[in-house]
Amino acid sequence: MIIVLKSGINDADVDEVCRRITEMGYGPHVIRGEFKTIVAAVGEERGRPDLRLLEAMETVESVMPVQQPFKLASREVRRDSTEVRINGVTVGGHDVVVMAGPCSVESQAQVLEVADAVKGSGAKVLRGGAYKPRTSPYAFQGLKEEGLRYLAEARKRTGLPVVTEVLETESVEVVAEYSDILQIGARNIQNFTLLRRVGEIGKPVLLKRGMATSIQEFLLSAEYILSAGNPNVILCERGIRTFETATRNTFDISAIPVVKKLSHLPIVADPSHGAGRRDMVAPMARAAVAAGADGLIIEVHCDPDHALSDGAQSMFPAQFDRLMAELRIIAPAIGRSICLEPVRRGGWGS
Amino acid sequence: MIIVLKSGINDADVDEVCRRITEMGYGPHVIRGEFKTIVAAVGEERGRPDLRLLEAMETVESVMPVQQPFKLASREVRRDSTEVRINGVTVGGHDVVVMAGPCSVESQAQVLEVADAVKGSGAKVLRGGAYKPRTSPYAFQGLKEEGLRYLAEARKRTGLPVVTEVLETESVEVVAEYSDILQIGARNIQNFTLLRRVGEIGKPVLLKRGMATSIQEFLLSAEYILSAGNPNVILCERGIRTFETATRNTFDISAIPVVKKLSHLPIVADPSHGAGRRDMVAPMARAAVAAGADGLIIEVHCDPDHALSDGAQSMFPAQFDRLMAELRIIAPAIGRSICLEPVRRGGWGS
Amino acid sequence: MIIVLKSGINDADVDEVCRRITEMGYGPHVIRGEFKTIVAAVGEERGRPDLRLLEAMETVESVMPVQQPFKLASREVRRDSTEVRINGVTVGGHDVVVMAGPCSVESQAQVLEVADAVKGSGAKVLRGGAYKPRTSPYAFQGLKEEGLRYLAEARKRTGLPVVTEVLETESVEVVAEYSDILQIGARNIQNFTLLRRVGEIGKPVLLKRGMATSIQEFLLSAEYILSAGNPNVILCERGIRTFETATRNTFDISAIPVVKKLSHLPIVADPSHGAGRRDMVAPMARAAVAAGADGLIIEVHCDPDHALSDGAQSMFPAQFDRLMAELRIIAPAIGRSICLEPVRRGGWGS
Amino acid sequence: MIIVLKSGINDADVDEVCRRITEMGYGPHVIRGEFKTIVAAVGEERGRPDLRLLEAMETVESVMPVQQPFKLASREVRRDSTEVRINGVTVGGHDVVVMAGPCSVESQAQVLEVADAVKGSGAKVLRGGAYKPRTSPYAFQGLKEEGLRYLAEARKRTGLPVVTEVLETESVEVVAEYSDILQIGARNIQNFTLLRRVGEIGKPVLLKRGMATSIQEFLLSAEYILSAGNPNVILCERGIRTFETATRNTFDISAIPVVKKLSHLPIVADPSHGAGRRDMVAPMARAAVAAGADGLIIEVHCDPDHALSDGAQSMFPAQFDRLMAELRIIAPAIGRSICLEPVRRGGWGS
Repeated sequence: MIIVLKSGINDADVDEVCRRITEMGYGPHVIRGEFKTIVAAVGEERGRPDLRLLEAMETVESVMPVQQPFKLASREVRRDSTEVRINGVTVGGHDVVVMAGPCSVESQAQVLEVADAVKGSGAKVLRGGAYKPRTSPYAFQGLKEEGLRYLAEARKRTGLPVVTEVLETESVEVVAEYSDILQIGARNIQNFTLLRRVGEIGKPVLLKRGMATSIQEFLLSAEYILSAGNPNVILCERGIRTFETATRNTFDISAIPVVKKLSHLPIVADPSHGAGRRDMVAPMARAAVAAGADGLIIEVHCDPDHALSDGAQSMFPAQFDRLMAELRIIAPAIGRSICLEPVRRGGWGS
Repeated sequence: MIIVLKSGINDADVDEVCRRITEMGYGPHVIRGEFKTIVAAVGEERGRPDLRLLEAMETVESVMPVQQPFKLASREVRRDSTEVRINGVTVGGHDVVVMAGPCSVESQAQVLEVADAVKGSGAKVLRGGAYKPRTSPYAFQGLKEEGLRYLAEARKRTGLPVVTEVLETESVEVVAEYSDILQIGARNIQNFTLLRRVGEIGKPVLLKRGMATSIQEFLLSAEYILSAGNPNVILCERGIRTFETATRNTFDISAIPVVKKLSHLPIVADPSHGAGRRDMVAPMARAAVAAGADGLIIEVHCDPDHALSDGAQSMFPAQFDRLMAELRIIAPAIGRSICLEPVRRGGWGS
Repeated sequence: MIIVLKSGINDADVDEVCRRITEMGYGPHVIRGEFKTIVAAVGEERGRPDLRLLEAMETVESVMPVQQPFKLASREVRRDSTEVRINGVTVGGHDVVVMAGPCSVESQAQVLEVADAVKGSGAKVLRGGAYKPRTSPYAFQGLKEEGLRYLAEARKRTGLPVVTEVLETESVEVVAEYSDILQIGARNIQNFTLLRRVGEIGKPVLLKRGMATSIQEFLLSAEYILSAGNPNVILCERGIRTFETATRNTFDISAIPVVKKLSHLPIVADPSHGAGRRDMVAPMARAAVAAGADGLIIEVHCDPDHALSDGAQSMFPAQFDRLMAELRIIAPAIGRSICLEPVRRGGWGS
Repeated sequence: MIIVLKSGINDADVDEVCRRITEMGYGPHVIRGEFKTIVAAVGEERGRPDLRLLEAMETVESVMPVQQPFKLASREVRRDSTEVRINGVTVGGHDVVVMAGPCSVESQAQVLEVADAVKGSGAKVLRGGAYKPRTSPYAFQGLKEEGLRYLAEARKRTGLPVVTEVLETESVEVVAEYSDILQIGARNIQNFTLLRRVGEIGKPVLLKRGMATSIQEFLLSAEYILSAGNPNVILCERGIRTFETATRNTFDISAIPVVKKLSHLPIVADPSHGAGRRDMVAPMARAAVAAGADGLIIEVHCDPDHALSDGAQSMFPAQFDRLMAELRIIAPAIGRSICLEPVRRGGWGS
């Protein structure tokens, strides 16, 4: 940390800051410039008191970190990229993994129809929402456990592992029982109690960035899961909130290479929520793969006109199929591939 | 709702949209302009299927709401301003209510010292955090139930009702047992499970706007609490996230008159988090009262240099006292007052 | 336009709004809902008084446009995509056009060295700044006319047409004399006097989106140039300002498909400014092409360590060469190509 | 400046960075931490090469400034607050100065009527737009020189000095001839050519912050004017662009105390553009004065229903009068006043 002192302070003030730095377990180094005096505090920061508390001192102008505040999520601590394995599917390896399915689980027939379609086009994981976080208390809130059973049924038939959102600590166990990957939604990115709970469960977690979450905070939220003992974290960029209203969110494509540089964790992209409009999903999906994403999670619906949520951003199966063909051309440009053959039947269970 | 159709659609397309609108329980009115055809869907929207689902249709360009999506929180449904009563203190009435205290509860002595000081300056409610949401898993997470006991002790001595944050459904009961107002923090603004739970508990709730929450979403989150049966909701503006980094957040002062126009619920301001810097708290607090806020919630610490969290934004008691004197001059400009005499002893309990 | 009236207004109020609408030359259609009354104003809006002026009436709650405010830039007015031709290079056609060169022109030798390098890798246009807009008055402001001469010299040797920024109306003529495309920088996106002036000059214009410019405003700025008689406008996405500080700007990749849907004008991407960091340029460039950009404009420097501006975001020639190879794989995924053979020598001059 | 080096670099790399720092005229100080090595570069930065250019080096992770980049605008260079004097009115002194008038000058009668009204309520400066920057080329662009003459006429009758916007270098002279304060609008905040030109003219300048301008950039734009020799700069906060759409802009009230801390220049607030809605202007105006603004600039129109621009945010004269009465109560809370008696007749001329 660099502690920048205010102009016009005297030697006693500098000494007092140094005393506090020493007291907190760091070594102070004073550098006097022409206008400003700064003190560099040297020492491992993680596990020691937070030097930013010094900002409270009247003689301190600002405290500037030189080190990222996360540890287990950092590429400095772990050089090699993490591969998360889910019943025969590997996220973070050579293959770009596409997860697809409906926004909400609406009926058994609906899930099976979409699951068959997306598997046929090359999807490796089935997505579908059973517990739905809705801005309005009057909107459809999901089929809950009934929805989970439909997803499990679709997994049984297609062999595709399932990713679905868990909304609250109370339902972590039941969601973990039925699904292969626990999704933490954007609104829960700083629900630290929930993060710790899914950290304690061993299952892979798909962690979506929040609408106002900086990349640093995103990795700190991952750190909550990792530090609770669960190394199987998949990050997911899904757009941030900006002044632009032409799209529902602004898909932050640059987050993909930034995260890959700072962290060893795999990162996938959610172009459906990133764009919020069906005709924008394919361009955003192609862009994400070209930028280096380890996978995609895409909403597909066989009858989006009658979808109970997010129909406007759900692709038709034929659009999804065409997109998969385009992605197979793009992936090799960055030394990746999109494997066509389906996952081995039964790989997830017996 | 106004459904704007795409250019180049034909009569059959318009008929199909009208058929869907009728099917959903609304009356369609077609208006053909020179370039665009629009369909107005007439009928009470709350409780009926969401017309925005029509955005999924290939012939629909956009769906524009003409009505706010919240109901119980709306001033259209309830004209008169809501007054929330907490043991002799009324938020939303003639008096501007100031809540003050430390960011984190750190010890019994600390809380009592601050409580005495802020009461002496005219604060009417004691704030203090026992459960702390922290961006990093390695930061101080609060004294939890021990902290709640210290707050209750301070309430006993000073007569000030207590507001403290509840982080998760698991601790709603214990927090409700010790405190007078349950605070929902900015990070939980869309933790709908928690919102419903505090709605079921009868106690007053202080609901903080999230960093990326629009005013409309803010009121929809209040609607979750109201629709669960709890009318005692106090809103709290605490700053939003923008590109500006000179302050930790951008305090959205205009949210105060906007909310007062749209909703009957009282709104208070948190200038400590809105600014993030001690020397900015007084100007922001004065501005909030001048803009019409029903109250303030301010961090005060007797020794901020050694605070375990947010010391940099905590005021010294003497600064707080000076601020209170300034506020007493400002409040009458808008026909309000800041009452000096302390709340009646014992008013909160026996 | 849809005029939404306030709750609680009476028939006389509605009549008055209708009278004003008629007076302004539109046809009013009243629709009475359960809570709200709206009036649709029908008629060509462009060229008539702006109906948004009605927002000033005390009985009007809001005015909602159903039509985009730009005309000449709109795909509704011109279905076919515009192709901008610059001395043998076509932007907006089948080929993805890559423009490259140094941020600032620093010397004759520097420009020639970079020009040769980027041409060898497949760039079709040479970029380079002679007039530099700098946030600080103390920073390097460019070589001005001397720089223009160096660019013209490089064009003569390589045959690459030149794009360079024009900062102010006073230098439009001299910049137009030396260059093939006039660049309007992000800070001048709403310098309407300058937009009109480059509209009067016949030369192609590269118009960069501003840091806080909505896509609608971006196209309205293009409309200034088009309506002054110049149809040769190339739009350029270069990142918007958001709360995220990990990159200098947030590259709004979704702007590419959104613009292509709303407008017939070609759009290119500037990943160098969008990212602000050398190691992010290649991923962003690949993403832009995958999302459908008609071209790229990229900063390349043979010795970025000693560049006088933006060295941190300038690619080394070898990095640029590798990127071009990757782009040649990606372009066919969307039915485009990146032509390798150099533009015909002399195509721009004799 | 602090230069943070990448992890894993060796001694030769550190030496090379130090060599470059010395070459640029600064003294390097190396500090080796457990994870990171940093180099502090000591020496006056203003006037020397920009150390941020070192970010281009492959061994450098980031460069962090410890000093603000502006000099003449800084309170470190000039402790005492600047007072700008305009024909008997002082901005930045004890009195809070209110400037008011119509958005656009529309006719002689309109200007005179508003001028008389606002003077009667206590305004000290008359505002009015003759050259209007409009997002759309099809909107009313102002009466130009004719408008300037109407303003001068109103000044002659009322004695109020005039502030009006100058859009482009070509009209600086004519605007300076007719007006007392030259306003630079938000869209021209980084039109550096225009800033330099108004810096060369001696007249007071009202500089509005742009919609995406950080406070640091705002003060650097002021530095352009100051460094061209004109010390009479009045800053103006008018709202920034954020995700919130309930108001046209988000009025950044915290910018007022932040600017007053960093700079000696006076700062006024424009609540009309900050809010964009008539009923929000009074609360924002009161808030700005409570936060410490040196003045206000407010749009008033006698018949906003028929205004040619911005009618929705223009106050009626009676509303403005009531606001002035409220402000007279608030100002003393921060040791200021709002003087009622009109400026001395003839003070601006003979």
